[in-house]
Amino acid sequence: MSITIDMNSDLGEGFGAWSIGDDKAVLSSVSSANIACGYHAGDPSIMRETIKLCAEQGVAVGAHVSYPDLLGFGRRNMACTPQEVYDYCLYQIGAIQGFCRVQGVTLQHVKPHGALYNQAAVDRKLADAIAAAVKDAGGGVLLMGLAGSEFGPAADAAGIRFAAEAFADRAYLKDGSLMPRSRQGAVIHDAGLAARRVVQMVTVGTVTTDDGSEIQFRPDTICLHGDTIEAVEMSAAVRKALENAGVQIRPLKEIK
Amino acid sequence: MSITIDMNSDLGEGFGAWSIGDDKAVLSSVSSANIACGYHAGDPSIMRETIKLCAEQGVAVGAHVSYPDLLGFGRRNMACTPQEVYDYCLYQIGAIQGFCRVQGVTLQHVKPHGALYNQAAVDRKLADAIAAAVKDAGGGVLLMGLAGSEFGPAADAAGIRFAAEAFADRAYLKDGSLMPRSRQGAVIHDAGLAARRVVQMVTVGTVTTDDGSEIQFRPDTICLHGDTIEAVEMSAAVRKALENAGVQIRPLKEIK
Amino acid sequence: MSITIDMNSDLGEGFGAWSIGDDKAVLSSVSSANIACGYHAGDPSIMRETIKLCAEQGVAVGAHVSYPDLLGFGRRNMACTPQEVYDYCLYQIGAIQGFCRVQGVTLQHVKPHGALYNQAAVDRKLADAIAAAVKDAGGGVLLMGLAGSEFGPAADAAGIRFAAEAFADRAYLKDGSLMPRSRQGAVIHDAGLAARRVVQMVTVGTVTTDDGSEIQFRPDTICLHGDTIEAVEMSAAVRKALENAGVQIRPLKEIK
Amino acid sequence: MSITIDMNSDLGEGFGAWSIGDDKAVLSSVSSANIACGYHAGDPSIMRETIKLCAEQGVAVGAHVSYPDLLGFGRRNMACTPQEVYDYCLYQIGAIQGFCRVQGVTLQHVKPHGALYNQAAVDRKLADAIAAAVKDAGGGVLLMGLAGSEFGPAADAAGIRFAAEAFADRAYLKDGSLMPRSRQGAVIHDAGLAARRVVQMVTVGTVTTDDGSEIQFRPDTICLHGDTIEAVEMSAAVRKALENAGVQIRPLKEIK
Repeated sequence: MSITIDMNSDLGEGFGAWSIGDDKAVLSSVSSANIACGYHAGDPSIMRETIKLCAEQGVAVGAHVSYPDLLGFGRRNMACTPQEVYDYCLYQIGAIQGFCRVQGVTLQHVKPHGALYNQAAVDRKLADAIAAAVKDAGGGVLLMGLAGSEFGPAADAAGIRFAAEAFADRAYLKDGSLMPRSRQGAVIHDAGLAARRVVQMVTVGTVTTDDGSEIQFRPDTICLHGDTIEAVEMSAAVRKALENAGVQIRPLKEIK
Repeated sequence: MSITIDMNSDLGEGFGAWSIGDDKAVLSSVSSANIACGYHAGDPSIMRETIKLCAEQGVAVGAHVSYPDLLGFGRRNMACTPQEVYDYCLYQIGAIQGFCRVQGVTLQHVKPHGALYNQAAVDRKLADAIAAAVKDAGGGVLLMGLAGSEFGPAADAAGIRFAAEAFADRAYLKDGSLMPRSRQGAVIHDAGLAARRVVQMVTVGTVTTDDGSEIQFRPDTICLHGDTIEAVEMSAAVRKALENAGVQIRPLKEIK
Repeated sequence: MSITIDMNSDLGEGFGAWSIGDDKAVLSSVSSANIACGYHAGDPSIMRETIKLCAEQGVAVGAHVSYPDLLGFGRRNMACTPQEVYDYCLYQIGAIQGFCRVQGVTLQHVKPHGALYNQAAVDRKLADAIAAAVKDAGGGVLLMGLAGSEFGPAADAAGIRFAAEAFADRAYLKDGSLMPRSRQGAVIHDAGLAARRVVQMVTVGTVTTDDGSEIQFRPDTICLHGDTIEAVEMSAAVRKALENAGVQIRPLKEIK
Repeated sequence: MSITIDMNSDLGEGFGAWSIGDDKAVLSSVSSANIACGYHAGDPSIMRETIKLCAEQGVAVGAHVSYPDLLGFGRRNMACTPQEVYDYCLYQIGAIQGFCRVQGVTLQHVKPHGALYNQAAVDRKLADAIAAAVKDAGGGVLLMGLAGSEFGPAADAAGIRFAAEAFADRAYLKDGSLMPRSRQGAVIHDAGLAARRVVQMVTVGTVTTDDGSEIQFRPDTICLHGDTIEAVEMSAAVRKALENAGVQIRPLKEIK
């Protein structure tokens, strides 16, 4: 039996006349796409076109739900109530489900974006609100979120499936958490190193932390980026290294 | 067999801290509600609350889809392409369907709002785009639109059901079209007169036009307003007159 | 020589088709208006009309600058950088200055709104950013903000004038800070009590705090509300009590 | 005495995390910049940074005012009233004047963008509304608009200066109007041809129209684009050709 892993990346992050990233390049590397739903990026036309591309390439579709902050690209913490977060998520998930239906695909997962991701990862009430929206959206949609965060327990409590996410380009601390970006070495820029680390996570089930120790670490999905040329190159390198190690890249819905 | 008719009104037209109209008063008069979906009014929290109210009162839920123009309340003509209109409609319909699902109700209809309504009523390409979105949203959703306009043929061509709408407070011309608002007498302010005219439409199947002649006119639904005290009073008067005439007020989904 | 005090209230907080509060009632009670500039409320047409009303009634005009959050009415904390806050303030101040010029009035003050007010009151970097925008806007504009907060030192450091604000309907602690809204008795609902407290602040220069002691407290302006009938009544009561005590209600620009 | 001409281009058309075009490349070719003011593109931070770049390079600053349509990049016709257009323009002009003041520059001109440009060019009421906003903004700001359109008479009537604009990459008809984009040959893609045509306009005062005839044509400013590599190359070619012909490229404020 071969080992499988999901690789995900953000897609459809343009808005109106604006675009970010090279979606087509990213699509050739990943098995799951997190598609912006209009709150931090994405508009109805871009959503339709991006989901069409995903459907054509067999890449699974996820909703990249966000705080309502186009100007800040959803990256700024906002003091929204859990009820507001639930409402915003349900709205965005419903909207993307409409486009999925037209393309004959099923929404696979929901992944919070940016500040909502970061805040809910450490705030159980927000994580619960997101999990409730995922559950209420129906269709067996998965919640994708940071491994070891509040997302996992929230998904369990809501009775929905959870996909633990690891980052190819980030250093980890001994407790399995991400090294804060403010610390030197938090972000890995070497594509080869990133690829080796991901292969270790996927095939051995461990990660080497900042102090050199190895801890158990079995993510369900690896997050890659596509907004810069370096990011696209790293994505390709990670994919290639996994394939060379005999790992199959498959969407979450075929694994979980 | 008794005669039945649907009565519809716009609901949930607040946004954030702002509100318009007395939704609770309107809910007691109508059988179908057109709920704003965030493009001209409405936000996710208001949508959730309004649909909950509808579910509790047995009022059928419709999507009041609009151009993206919060500042203009969707009342300003915009040169959107049919593709954009399709995309915007599918987005808004999907979003409201999420909230319907949670409340255990099914989206009954889609009614274009304001400028989109007016432009698509006379532009077959826009009407076709809206009809396509309704069809693609699935679930047997009806398209509600002006009687005698491009909406009917567009719905037929798309293979979806159409609900022809009449206005209680508007005068009609000999060809069955609305008298333009620019002409004197276009808007009826007398609640009793409006009520008598609606009873005639529903029980006799005719309307008296501006030149005094009677033409065949059998709407599926009567549009009422709720944004002013006068409008709420007229709605109640129309409902009472219909009931006195033995007409049953029922949602479209139970009639069509 | 008579004692003078400024009374301020929020105005022009509608947006497009929506409105909040009874601006005309408020205008008869206050000497300074904080006018929404499009970020939490207000749009160009409402700004023009509201400033026209102010000019006609001799009420001084201020910019009520906010985070960009129409959906949340500017009431939700947002993690904006000081640079962003400076940019947003300068944008909003410039925009309102255009409308002031047309009405032949000068922008008197800038008052941060909602979450920006609350966050900057305790965050010197944000207060500095706002003060810098006020200074760079030119024209000798005052910064209005919470008495005893970071606004005062920030204004001093920037070399602009500061107007310390007190609230007619709020209880104060021994250190001169507002009692948190979470505590019982934080908000005063009795118009007569509010009026007596304001008269004491203005004529004696003290406020009675939650433990019954009296502390020195000399605000430059009293904040009143106009978004409810009770608020409008309290505003009128405060004004009347001040006038009965021989206090003159005058705009800041005539006092400071 | 040497011949002078102004060359203008659109700048600062990003929004939040998004950008369009290569502003730095464009800045080296033009003497005047049309800077987005937040309605079709541009945000306060981008406005500040772009005006700073202009100030550093000696490029004159203009306000690129638009309909409120970020999603459509201001390119879609909207049925705004003249009063709304006036209000929107005054708001945007005031906002940009704030940033100009900080950089020690004076706003040179106002140029309507996209759909507002196209609609007002043939609708005197809209042109008048824009001209009134320019006048009321004060400071001797010029109105820049299509040569031979309604902008000229509107500016004259308002008592403000007008700068007639020609397009380097567009064909002209015998009456001096632009060949509609729907016709073949409407857009000129050959940089050399565009450059020769501009030199002819500027040095001879004529343009060769679609039927081969030459008509009188003396623009005050030449519009160039910077949103594609081809556009940037054409801009450079036009500038070089003008310089080779002994023409001086100078901002409008030094010419008119």
